[in-house]
Amino acid sequence: MIRLYDFITSGNCWKVRLVLSHLGRPYERVEIDRFTSYTRSAEYRAINPLGLVPALRLEDGRILHDSAAIAFYLTEDTSLLPADAPGRAEVIQWLIYEQRYICETVGMARYIVTTLGKGGLDEAGAQSETLAEVQRLGHEGLAGLETRLAKRDFLIGAGCTIADLCNYVYVAMADQGNMDLAPYPAIRRWLARLEALPGHRAMGDVPAPVLRRP
Amino acid sequence: MIRLYDFITSGNCWKVRLVLSHLGRPYERVEIDRFTSYTRSAEYRAINPLGLVPALRLEDGRILHDSAAIAFYLTEDTSLLPADAPGRAEVIQWLIYEQRYICETVGMARYIVTTLGKGGLDEAGAQSETLAEVQRLGHEGLAGLETRLAKRDFLIGAGCTIADLCNYVYVAMADQGNMDLAPYPAIRRWLARLEALPGHRAMGDVPAPVLRRP
Repeated sequence: MIRLYDFITSGNCWKVRLVLSHLGRPYERVEIDRFTSYTRSAEYRAINPLGLVPALRLEDGRILHDSAAIAFYLTEDTSLLPADAPGRAEVIQWLIYEQRYICETVGMARYIVTTLGKGGLDEAGAQSETLAEVQRLGHEGLAGLETRLAKRDFLIGAGCTIADLCNYVYVAMADQGNMDLAPYPAIRRWLARLEALPGHRAMGDVPAPVLRRP
Repeated sequence: MIRLYDFITSGNCWKVRLVLSHLGRPYERVEIDRFTSYTRSAEYRAINPLGLVPALRLEDGRILHDSAAIAFYLTEDTSLLPADAPGRAEVIQWLIYEQRYICETVGMARYIVTTLGKGGLDEAGAQSETLAEVQRLGHEGLAGLETRLAKRDFLIGAGCTIADLCNYVYVAMADQGNMDLAPYPAIRRWLARLEALPGHRAMGDVPAPVLRRP
């Protein structure tokens, strides 16, 4: 069975779990605490040299990391990935859009607020300046999504693809980075549309782990 | 015929031109000056809403942007992209590696030195601090490539793929960001290996443009 190296509150891990639940595909889940030094250990570096989650071990022992690459792998020849080459290229384009304009901005705002703590403020206020800048860039990324979704139900074609699932995650958690989605009605309708799909799972709705590390 | 919106000194554009020359695929080239306001014009925003090059117009009028998405599209069912799903996922993984750990670091160092000018120094020295930081991150990215290439001729499988061509570009220009490749013998052998392939073209070796903008 495929095995997911997973951390519950990681948005990138949630992307992979969403894809798996939409596919109804069973998997073993290894629960990792990203905030210990385990992901920097030799044991985990053998799984992912970058020391990041998620990673997916295939049945043949091959390991894939990076949520976008894993999502693409899992959905070839399924309805979550277009059958035509230009459609697949558009999916890759929007997966990269997510990484550059959403994850590193809207996702980074969440990271600063929830993980670096202090509501994005440090003593010198330097962190709060960083937060304001990633929020500004995040609104640019959200504006691009809003434009794209203004006249469409999903990012590519007529149905949900991994481009939607991967862009969904950090946008759905924008409030955790103190970012308001009120100016983005098309995005809010799209979030609700995705959450109504039968394969949808909340971030914390996960199968029991087969292993915990460390 | 497919049409490439192209800027000669853009590394991301060179990636696409390399893929096209390896494929021996004819294309129309529109030469754009990235440093004018043309890429922010309504005319160009209709081609790429992000205002970036490269963009590729397909025969049916559809437009793809993002070098990785374009490279993937052009090479489906060719030897530059693996035929098996895990191999294709590994390619995507290394395309994203390039964007995050090479283009935004080694490529950014080149941008600071050659485009922002002043050899990476501004009056307050702030730019030089940024340069030192992106160079440091760039060396981390190069170290990851060096490890991967220590026992392999190419990043994935036994032959050249778009993962190699896309990672090649900014690494080959590392010296323009004042970054030395001397510590990376496997990378230097890999660069020479890629440059010896019959499809290789230098950055400035381009077909005549059918149009110039602006």
